[in-house]
Amino acid sequence: MIQSSINRHHVVIVGAGFGGIQAANQLQGTDVDVTIIDRRNHHLFQPLLYQVAGASLSTSEIAWPVRHLFRNRPEVSTLMAEVEGIDRDARQVILGNGTRVTYDTLVLATGATHAYFGHDEWGTFAPGLKTLEDAMTIRSRILSAFEEAERTSDPQLRAALQTFVIIGGGPTGVELSGTIAELARDTLARDFRSIDPSTSRVVLIEAGSRLLSVFPEELSDYTRQALEKLGVEVVLGAPVTECSAEGVIFGGKSLAAKTIVWAAGVQASPAARWLNAPSDRAGRVIVGPDLTVSGYPEIFVIGDTASCVMPDGKPVPGIAPAAKQQGRYVANLIRARLTSEPVDKPFKYWHQGNLATIGRSLAVIHVGRLKLRGAFAWWLWKLAHIYFLIGTRNRLSVALSWMWNHSIGYRGSRIIMYASTVEDGQSAPMKLADRAR
Amino acid sequence: MIQSSINRHHVVIVGAGFGGIQAANQLQGTDVDVTIIDRRNHHLFQPLLYQVAGASLSTSEIAWPVRHLFRNRPEVSTLMAEVEGIDRDARQVILGNGTRVTYDTLVLATGATHAYFGHDEWGTFAPGLKTLEDAMTIRSRILSAFEEAERTSDPQLRAALQTFVIIGGGPTGVELSGTIAELARDTLARDFRSIDPSTSRVVLIEAGSRLLSVFPEELSDYTRQALEKLGVEVVLGAPVTECSAEGVIFGGKSLAAKTIVWAAGVQASPAARWLNAPSDRAGRVIVGPDLTVSGYPEIFVIGDTASCVMPDGKPVPGIAPAAKQQGRYVANLIRARLTSEPVDKPFKYWHQGNLATIGRSLAVIHVGRLKLRGAFAWWLWKLAHIYFLIGTRNRLSVALSWMWNHSIGYRGSRIIMYASTVEDGQSAPMKLADRAR
Repeated sequence: MIQSSINRHHVVIVGAGFGGIQAANQLQGTDVDVTIIDRRNHHLFQPLLYQVAGASLSTSEIAWPVRHLFRNRPEVSTLMAEVEGIDRDARQVILGNGTRVTYDTLVLATGATHAYFGHDEWGTFAPGLKTLEDAMTIRSRILSAFEEAERTSDPQLRAALQTFVIIGGGPTGVELSGTIAELARDTLARDFRSIDPSTSRVVLIEAGSRLLSVFPEELSDYTRQALEKLGVEVVLGAPVTECSAEGVIFGGKSLAAKTIVWAAGVQASPAARWLNAPSDRAGRVIVGPDLTVSGYPEIFVIGDTASCVMPDGKPVPGIAPAAKQQGRYVANLIRARLTSEPVDKPFKYWHQGNLATIGRSLAVIHVGRLKLRGAFAWWLWKLAHIYFLIGTRNRLSVALSWMWNHSIGYRGSRIIMYASTVEDGQSAPMKLADRAR
Repeated sequence: MIQSSINRHHVVIVGAGFGGIQAANQLQGTDVDVTIIDRRNHHLFQPLLYQVAGASLSTSEIAWPVRHLFRNRPEVSTLMAEVEGIDRDARQVILGNGTRVTYDTLVLATGATHAYFGHDEWGTFAPGLKTLEDAMTIRSRILSAFEEAERTSDPQLRAALQTFVIIGGGPTGVELSGTIAELARDTLARDFRSIDPSTSRVVLIEAGSRLLSVFPEELSDYTRQALEKLGVEVVLGAPVTECSAEGVIFGGKSLAAKTIVWAAGVQASPAARWLNAPSDRAGRVIVGPDLTVSGYPEIFVIGDTASCVMPDGKPVPGIAPAAKQQGRYVANLIRARLTSEPVDKPFKYWHQGNLATIGRSLAVIHVGRLKLRGAFAWWLWKLAHIYFLIGTRNRLSVALSWMWNHSIGYRGSRIIMYASTVEDGQSAPMKLADRAR
């Protein structure tokens, strides 16, 4: 059993995403011990994950070991471990190996994963993009598809290999389809001899009536047109009804495609099950105005794991700034409780705006009444993202990668490891395992 | 069947390592078509692979897509494919999918892999370091061992997790043990709360009587002392007789260790089997003075795949400069044959010297009569390696990584993906496959 050493108040944070890290940061200087538990050893800057999938950035440019982030805070411990459950009465987190970690306050910030709307079997053919491994799987499939197309002499197979389908027209789908189109038309332009990468089809399929549904309609239209200029085929109002090794079926039509990426839906991590607490349709724990679980004031749930409705009836969106604001709120609330300050302000979400990039030179930004689009928005987007990265080393490295990519279309991370094709199923790693000595 | 398009002389190069790439480079301007076949999509700068394993460099900093290297040479095609065999009479390379590639001249440069001296089952517990996947497996095991040590309360298990054994005292073993010792004592110094990484044991075991046996004895002694100062325990004259999930047995003693790395032996790729040609004990194809296979003047074998003895009776060593010189020689010979220049000079190996680093600030260099050691040698080593990297982008990136590492001990690539522990066997990827949706 792991306990706080000297009977100080012990805050256990499960999940080292934006919400969890922000809570730990904001607790600096508070008289508490903090334990961060995550099943991975790194914090991930998810907004740039699509650039890892698109071979523009390498994995280590957007990920940091959690314990390294807190190396200078002796009161913060990090545990890389799977959480199996929570014993609310004993106030303990139960780890995979049976170890129990006792908390005084618990912050659940375990994030979300993809949802296939009852079709989990599609995961094999249409991986989503939430983790570094996901990004490597998608990158490997995209690059391997071009390699196999160069090898084959079967024109039908070649066409299917050169067809890339992205399902879901939110920011991830828009960003992925833009980056794949540019990869084919620009980065790979002179690399092949049998195939012409620029004839590849990149098809973005959205069930709703427009892309980027959280943006104003004019920015949605602009995005569609800008993507089409990059060579992306945008299909709207067409729910996908089938994903297989052969391709996709949408709106009654079938399209042969060997590479499919899922960017359509998310569902929360199993925190609601651990807590045996009420959840919404996406599996998110329903929390009160102070982000606690009903009846358990010492348990907070934040970020994509929480279902939180503002007084005006609007739900808090599942984006990084919301998770960070909640992490900050919770840390302040914990501090206030310990110092007996009055604690009655509910969480209030401040919407800073929405950003999405279209390829490597355009973006759309919506902040309050401000609607930006085009190259200037893209520069703002780049600066904002460089700013939000952690550490000078990574900022320099990402800036360097972007300089090369922007100026000559070069992408430094076009290495196929754990080679994956759709035939292998969810198998970037499986294939290598088959080959294991 | 893949043939050269316009009946030009078709050179097929199998293997995109140092030898194969050099041959293709040197053929520039010759009236031939070139096809490079490799089962991976990248050329790898193997001398820095240990830094990927040690989390100092990321994979994309030392690897380049082969087809990108030749994007400006339309006469060079690249195929990512497995070779299954060679039909010497039909002059065809047989690929995994049954496709046959017809050649006029064949250059086999397929490299080497680890050899476990008849104990292939050790591979599960003691991975070697030849590919990017190997480096990621080793990195993942090292970092995961520290994570598990932090988690456990069993002192025996913790000791085994904090014991790192490297088998083989050649350059790779020396470089790996130095970098792991510094990782533990320096980079990770402040990252843990339950364990003290600096108490970790790094044990380098060599069967022979000294480290770096190809260097002069005084440099071997210097290397041993320098490693010991970094905290590495050097064991000489102790052949390993057992590797298991528990640890190693050497010289009758057993040592509990959860992380073992194999740097002791290599064996050639199956080229000799493909050719049904005579080979030496390490499986290398025996070639004549012009690097061709007896009876087949159109088949060259170079690099680690070839067993080549100089007129003075000395074997050509299995190192990058030798492979590059052979690649250059073969390309010149092909050109000479085509232009009917006299062709009678045998291959002559020019030994430029040996280099090895000890940690991040010392090195040993042996060039002719020159024996260098210490910090100056290390600077020369760094400059030489930056110089030999391909492309400004990667040079800048590696220089940046080294600056950070050298100045503050920071290592940017400490991300655990495809988590691997020795319990999983050869399974960085397997474990994830188990979890697959």
